[in-house]
Amino acid sequence: MKRFALTVEFDGRPFMGWQRQSHGPSVQGALEAAAFAVTGEEVAVHAAGRTDAGVHGLAMRAHCDVAKPFAAFRLMEALNARLRPHPVAVLACEEVAADWHARFSCIGRAYEYRIVNRRAPLTWEAGLAWQVPQPLDEEAMARAAAMLVGRHDFTTFRSAHCQADSPVRTLDVLAVERVGERLAVKAAARSFLHHQVRSMVGCLALVGMGRWAVDDVGAALAARDRSRLGLNAPPDGLFFVGAVYPDSVTT
Amino acid sequence: MKRFALTVEFDGRPFMGWQRQSHGPSVQGALEAAAFAVTGEEVAVHAAGRTDAGVHGLAMRAHCDVAKPFAAFRLMEALNARLRPHPVAVLACEEVAADWHARFSCIGRAYEYRIVNRRAPLTWEAGLAWQVPQPLDEEAMARAAAMLVGRHDFTTFRSAHCQADSPVRTLDVLAVERVGERLAVKAAARSFLHHQVRSMVGCLALVGMGRWAVDDVGAALAARDRSRLGLNAPPDGLFFVGAVYPDSVTT
Repeated sequence: MKRFALTVEFDGRPFMGWQRQSHGPSVQGALEAAAFAVTGEEVAVHAAGRTDAGVHGLAMRAHCDVAKPFAAFRLMEALNARLRPHPVAVLACEEVAADWHARFSCIGRAYEYRIVNRRAPLTWEAGLAWQVPQPLDEEAMARAAAMLVGRHDFTTFRSAHCQADSPVRTLDVLAVERVGERLAVKAAARSFLHHQVRSMVGCLALVGMGRWAVDDVGAALAARDRSRLGLNAPPDGLFFVGAVYPDSVTT
Repeated sequence: MKRFALTVEFDGRPFMGWQRQSHGPSVQGALEAAAFAVTGEEVAVHAAGRTDAGVHGLAMRAHCDVAKPFAAFRLMEALNARLRPHPVAVLACEEVAADWHARFSCIGRAYEYRIVNRRAPLTWEAGLAWQVPQPLDEEAMARAAAMLVGRHDFTTFRSAHCQADSPVRTLDVLAVERVGERLAVKAAARSFLHHQVRSMVGCLALVGMGRWAVDDVGAALAARDRSRLGLNAPPDGLFFVGAVYPDSVTT
């Protein structure tokens, strides 16, 4: 049995999310079906994190165990051939130690949230960004974002369905960048709560629109109360962009 | 009668091209249908350039004449509301002089051609870039591109269906840039021949793959013979990115 680490890109639009579902298509399901077609084995594919319906992956990390003696490159090519026509692609594949685990070995996760700030509807980016028609003040958003960085109880920014034991997380990065009409909110932490990035981005957008003051974000955080959340941003703009592992081999 | 200059973004994937067709959807047709719905007038929409099936627009320039007394902003909003669900959006609209013409007043056109250089298939970018699996040497491509810049007879790089009187064009810019696995070929000229950008990019890609030497591009140009074209790149990666007008009002 060999363990392979995969780097996976996917378009979240047609999927109910990463996790295998009985009632609809999932990224995990597409990968596992491809792995079965390639190997004839019931291969389970484990990811660094689960993503919601409509959320995208630029470099999701995952792993799977294969009994047949595949070379990593051959396995990647065969998976990509069998993944068609699903918008899921294996960008990299390498053999790793049997105790390397995409989720449990992961010590850092990064997301990027993309906003298109204009009145006109999206065309080729529909479903790949959040269109916000009101002018956004990205400097105010950046000041509000700074209030969320650090170790906090993020109950306000956590889905009611979140299964984590603790609402405390250490947010390492929450940066707001604008290039023309495009904004990117970049977030990095060891781990995130369910809906945490979308909830933080929603409140930053309220600040950007001028509907919230910068300090309202700090007050919402301090309240530790989900009902104080201003806005949960839609999944469209959210991309899982990377995972970090202690051993740089697979960073 | 007022004349309005439009800046239009569109996803070329569902369209047979810019130009109105009797046998399928076009960007022009979508805009004219929206304009009719908004104004009740048979409005003709003229563009800076025509694009082929599958080619995209980030900032196509166009104009139309409207008899009803619309304010530019109101017209833009109404067109966008009526364009749904087509992936076409009016990014800007302004009133211009009656002799301003999107095509005939245009003194510069710019395209960008996007390549994703990797073995894995495209996911969210399918139809929005050309996936080239062979490693591309972007420095060799840039040297080859330099051989095409300037005033030349571009017969080799011109579609058999090109209707231009002369095959001579002055290519002002042909630049190759790489960021990670993504390459962009940027082209600017007063005007282009039919298929010229795709034909140039196809030959640059052959150089990048090592199938052509850099000098082969110069030889193909000098031959002034369409049969010497090495490869016509697919429409997927081509974006019309801008048009230049003498009056900076509408650049």
